[in-house]
Amino acid sequence: MRPSGRAPEATREITLTRGYTKHAEGSVLVAFGDTQVLCTASVEAGVPRWLRGKGQGWITAEYGMLPRATHTRSGREAARGKQGGRTIEIQRLIGRSLRAAVDLKKLGEFTITIDCDVLQADGGTRTAAITGGCVALVDALQSLQRNKQITTDPLKQLVSAVSVGIYKGQAVTDLDYAEDSRAETDMNVVMTADGGIIEVQGTAEQKSFSRSELNAMMDMAEAGCEQLFACQRKELGMVS
Amino acid sequence: MRPSGRAPEATREITLTRGYTKHAEGSVLVAFGDTQVLCTASVEAGVPRWLRGKGQGWITAEYGMLPRATHTRSGREAARGKQGGRTIEIQRLIGRSLRAAVDLKKLGEFTITIDCDVLQADGGTRTAAITGGCVALVDALQSLQRNKQITTDPLKQLVSAVSVGIYKGQAVTDLDYAEDSRAETDMNVVMTADGGIIEVQGTAEQKSFSRSELNAMMDMAEAGCEQLFACQRKELGMVS
Amino acid sequence: MRPSGRAPEATREITLTRGYTKHAEGSVLVAFGDTQVLCTASVEAGVPRWLRGKGQGWITAEYGMLPRATHTRSGREAARGKQGGRTIEIQRLIGRSLRAAVDLKKLGEFTITIDCDVLQADGGTRTAAITGGCVALVDALQSLQRNKQITTDPLKQLVSAVSVGIYKGQAVTDLDYAEDSRAETDMNVVMTADGGIIEVQGTAEQKSFSRSELNAMMDMAEAGCEQLFACQRKELGMVS
Amino acid sequence: MRPSGRAPEATREITLTRGYTKHAEGSVLVAFGDTQVLCTASVEAGVPRWLRGKGQGWITAEYGMLPRATHTRSGREAARGKQGGRTIEIQRLIGRSLRAAVDLKKLGEFTITIDCDVLQADGGTRTAAITGGCVALVDALQSLQRNKQITTDPLKQLVSAVSVGIYKGQAVTDLDYAEDSRAETDMNVVMTADGGIIEVQGTAEQKSFSRSELNAMMDMAEAGCEQLFACQRKELGMVS
Amino acid sequence: MRPSGRAPEATREITLTRGYTKHAEGSVLVAFGDTQVLCTASVEAGVPRWLRGKGQGWITAEYGMLPRATHTRSGREAARGKQGGRTIEIQRLIGRSLRAAVDLKKLGEFTITIDCDVLQADGGTRTAAITGGCVALVDALQSLQRNKQITTDPLKQLVSAVSVGIYKGQAVTDLDYAEDSRAETDMNVVMTADGGIIEVQGTAEQKSFSRSELNAMMDMAEAGCEQLFACQRKELGMVS
Amino acid sequence: MRPSGRAPEATREITLTRGYTKHAEGSVLVAFGDTQVLCTASVEAGVPRWLRGKGQGWITAEYGMLPRATHTRSGREAARGKQGGRTIEIQRLIGRSLRAAVDLKKLGEFTITIDCDVLQADGGTRTAAITGGCVALVDALQSLQRNKQITTDPLKQLVSAVSVGIYKGQAVTDLDYAEDSRAETDMNVVMTADGGIIEVQGTAEQKSFSRSELNAMMDMAEAGCEQLFACQRKELGMVS
Repeated sequence: MRPSGRAPEATREITLTRGYTKHAEGSVLVAFGDTQVLCTASVEAGVPRWLRGKGQGWITAEYGMLPRATHTRSGREAARGKQGGRTIEIQRLIGRSLRAAVDLKKLGEFTITIDCDVLQADGGTRTAAITGGCVALVDALQSLQRNKQITTDPLKQLVSAVSVGIYKGQAVTDLDYAEDSRAETDMNVVMTADGGIIEVQGTAEQKSFSRSELNAMMDMAEAGCEQLFACQRKELGMVS
Repeated sequence: MRPSGRAPEATREITLTRGYTKHAEGSVLVAFGDTQVLCTASVEAGVPRWLRGKGQGWITAEYGMLPRATHTRSGREAARGKQGGRTIEIQRLIGRSLRAAVDLKKLGEFTITIDCDVLQADGGTRTAAITGGCVALVDALQSLQRNKQITTDPLKQLVSAVSVGIYKGQAVTDLDYAEDSRAETDMNVVMTADGGIIEVQGTAEQKSFSRSELNAMMDMAEAGCEQLFACQRKELGMVS
Repeated sequence: MRPSGRAPEATREITLTRGYTKHAEGSVLVAFGDTQVLCTASVEAGVPRWLRGKGQGWITAEYGMLPRATHTRSGREAARGKQGGRTIEIQRLIGRSLRAAVDLKKLGEFTITIDCDVLQADGGTRTAAITGGCVALVDALQSLQRNKQITTDPLKQLVSAVSVGIYKGQAVTDLDYAEDSRAETDMNVVMTADGGIIEVQGTAEQKSFSRSELNAMMDMAEAGCEQLFACQRKELGMVS
Repeated sequence: MRPSGRAPEATREITLTRGYTKHAEGSVLVAFGDTQVLCTASVEAGVPRWLRGKGQGWITAEYGMLPRATHTRSGREAARGKQGGRTIEIQRLIGRSLRAAVDLKKLGEFTITIDCDVLQADGGTRTAAITGGCVALVDALQSLQRNKQITTDPLKQLVSAVSVGIYKGQAVTDLDYAEDSRAETDMNVVMTADGGIIEVQGTAEQKSFSRSELNAMMDMAEAGCEQLFACQRKELGMVS
Repeated sequence: MRPSGRAPEATREITLTRGYTKHAEGSVLVAFGDTQVLCTASVEAGVPRWLRGKGQGWITAEYGMLPRATHTRSGREAARGKQGGRTIEIQRLIGRSLRAAVDLKKLGEFTITIDCDVLQADGGTRTAAITGGCVALVDALQSLQRNKQITTDPLKQLVSAVSVGIYKGQAVTDLDYAEDSRAETDMNVVMTADGGIIEVQGTAEQKSFSRSELNAMMDMAEAGCEQLFACQRKELGMVS
Repeated sequence: MRPSGRAPEATREITLTRGYTKHAEGSVLVAFGDTQVLCTASVEAGVPRWLRGKGQGWITAEYGMLPRATHTRSGREAARGKQGGRTIEIQRLIGRSLRAAVDLKKLGEFTITIDCDVLQADGGTRTAAITGGCVALVDALQSLQRNKQITTDPLKQLVSAVSVGIYKGQAVTDLDYAEDSRAETDMNVVMTADGGIIEVQGTAEQKSFSRSELNAMMDMAEAGCEQLFACQRKELGMVS
């Protein structure tokens, strides 16, 4: 049985709160159970140097955890003078995933930075960040259109992400910390609303996994992302 | 008149929310109007090397702003690889101020780190951080007593802080960003609940200030801190 | 057709050269076609602080590219003062993968560092590094046994890795740079010699991929790793 | 009684030596007793990026202590790879204070950097740095006029600074290290020659201070700055 | 007698292998016995900022050692976040030495970076790097001419370097690690093919050395460089 | 003719002022003409980790230039976050040179750090630093003996250093900036009082130099160091 008592295919309670802070073009608090991540989308004119003059925009992401988002305090990265390997790995994943949601040509020479800051961690922070970050991104794209800075909608499709894993031999979805820290395999899957796969990252933690376990996890991921897309559409007032 | 329409001696609405996140020994969301700071207090056994064996504890503070807490996005300090001068100045002030609230001998060889992370900024983040950080600190001290890690209460007195200034020739209290960015003088005052002064930092921004203006600002600060102490006591359930 | 003219399931020529340099306990030059990586395994007594006293060893990896391993020179990470995000991502992958090859309890309190330095890059440097690093690791484990520093063989199984992808709609294996830079999807798969999966990292580069494409790539990966295990066993003089 | 035997209102011997080194546009060795600080003012054409095109100049300051300026050697900041929090706090104070001396519009697009390097420390290095830095700044402004780079004098007024404090219950001025390290309260006050206050930074070190102690310290500061202005005027050959 | 059994004036076996890797404009593996250094020369259009518009080019060098090039593993400089003092000293020497080989005016506004990465160290890595780097540089200069990017040959003369020293009271040439680590004096000499001296760096390791010992070492260096020039010319197909 | 009008063999006026600052165990201001360097020697109990338990002491050096020691201001290394290559090269030279003056076994487990900070630069700062640093070192050694921390004198011999060069075809000694910046060859020579050579570092700046020029420079260096030893002995009150 899962520590939380959930069924294998049950995600935690998912909430998305738009307009959580007031300055950003998009600002979403996303909660996957006790995991809470504040995702803001900031629009800036211009693109990084290596993209200049190519007539396209850029989406990038940064990730951070407040020092006491976790059970025990971890050192502040700003004070230690560099971002850790895990942070860098995660923010690269978020950036790649969200770029898949957008037609960068239609975005034009704007850069949108998605900041994902974990207020409270209980497993699945990167998948929550992608799911919430996508909603903040949509708000930022709409702000650009409302302000007549761009004329067409660059959004190609919604993107969401869920963690799946093998826990006590059983495929499960949306692992919390208690489960995640003891799972045999942990896999993050990023999908598009039309059922395409953007990213798969599966890691054997205790022992290797098999093709059939990989398939069982992928089934779980597809079902989990369906639920996440429904939450995103509802919060955004989109017809599914 | 003040941009907010407030009377010179009126602070913004102050709210203190204990237990805002679940892992920290103390976790308080403090709001001074639209300024929102998450203050957590983390207890760790042991003290910094230079204090070892002296039979006393230590209180330290770290401060950060989420990149889009402000009107325009500012670079993430963790990504830039160092904390800016303003950040360092502020976290040193918070640490000094909160150490004044505690009898470090009674604390014993524990270190309490107060993390103050600004979710949304609208002026006065450092004074909100000190005021909210003090409540988180009290919760952490009570947790130590509850767990029998220490036997007497190290709290000497509550500490709070307010910004005051000269705006259009008039002394005002608890400046928001609109006021702060145009004030002639900006001063932060940290006080103890028994009326003592812990720290005074006044800076002439546009032109120098006089002894009588200094006095008028100090009067404002005393009145403002009184209100803050009442908020702290109410949230902590302390008899005033 | 593939730029190299290879059949979809054909890897490049794979060579593994043991004893490439003289100081390291294991030193292997691995070539996947024009991709050349020097993998050394260095044994040091002791383990990182957080593992001390747990009666187990540790395997870690570091990765680097010589500045002119690539078509155009990239800045030296040592001179820039930090390792880039890609480097960190890769060396974490190599470390996780090679730890799966070893029973860390049997290793005892030794740390083995696998340094993977790319002399020439033509796609697939991380999979070459894992495949070659595993052979260097085996040599280091044998050196520990030869020197009577440990008494049982900590090797659980060989580990190898191959990149697969979707190129012009077709699943292909062991992509070189010409292919890799234009592939629709790029996936790295790490496997154990008994057919288990250690790590799957698939990224949609141009457009999302489907479950059936994922399956086709996994089939390719299994076949590719079989070839790699044969090369490893041959170079190590192991009976397959 | 004070450790030095001085009367409460007596400063140490103050000396200002212009032209101490030969390359800088202004170069002043300032001594407050045994505290010796070399202040140089360097003129450069242009302003920081964020000020370009605004038709004004900029004054900034940097502060450092030679490693053995103090009783025991402290690590060289250049070797440790960053400036400490105290250094940053002090150099920001010096910069703000000296900008108050100058009409930045009249300065035009020039940047003047005031370097304050402590050769020997015995308390009060930041107030000595401001007082000596102001004289170096005046020399640099005169050099700009002499060279016809600017046509009007940007100097608004002299600025000086003194430390005051509460020592054994008594307000005292210009604390040396022996006093400073045991004072109950330590306050730095920066003033303009016409009696205005530029900056007040008071910190309770042992116990909080009262409004009447604040007033007593301000009285001391005003008297102390009067003496410093007299020294500055004399060294600059200005009629008081 | 020398640990290697060599005669005092005998260098180790010297080999220079051009075209060692495929991407760089020049790529040479140089071996002085067991010391192996990969030297690549990379051409980039443009010069550093401080040289722009002066109608000349620039030659610079970077040096690194693979972590396990040595008897025991040394920390990777990229991971530690900075290059060590020895590395910086060596790469500055290589750069200065190779600039002496070239007429920078004739090079025009191109920058050539010589990367010298030590694959295996056994003493004399910096002299091997200069000697091999010069051949890589010649190849890069020829590539510029072949591509019609420049019209005249900027090569003024070949440059090579050898280490000499006093070992057990005897002047010897091309010290290997066993000798180098116990020599009384260690000196590196860089020369031009016409017999001029570019750089002399002699350091007394155990005791000071005399003018006559300096002379004996210089004689050794001249003879050693003669052999190196012959190897360079042979590998480059130049008539001596 | 030399820009200064000096004869080829004439050094600038050399002054050594002991006791220049009050905290350090040794503190010497050394002037070679307009070049002024403050050299302090700081004694600390203990040695670096890699020397512990070997029954010997350690001498190390750090070098810095005040930002406006030079004609134009150079960035403060502490603010830029790292020491430049030139600084590192120089401080390693100073450390090596001064270690040659001392019997480290007799020093016992103490570390002496020589800080050399350039107040004003006019060529030859590294040779001034070695010459002045040696006197500060002698004072620190005497302080250790006076305090009965060691019982025998670790000083083996005085060490001094002078720059020599080829200027307009003529060997000259103790070059000032005007000469140094246009010299054909620049060489720094460190010697012991008994005539031994500790270090030779000669660099061809404009064109290579010959063996006879090397000899002429060495003759100049021997004569120059003789004068420096006389100055050191006189300031230290030693019989020559």
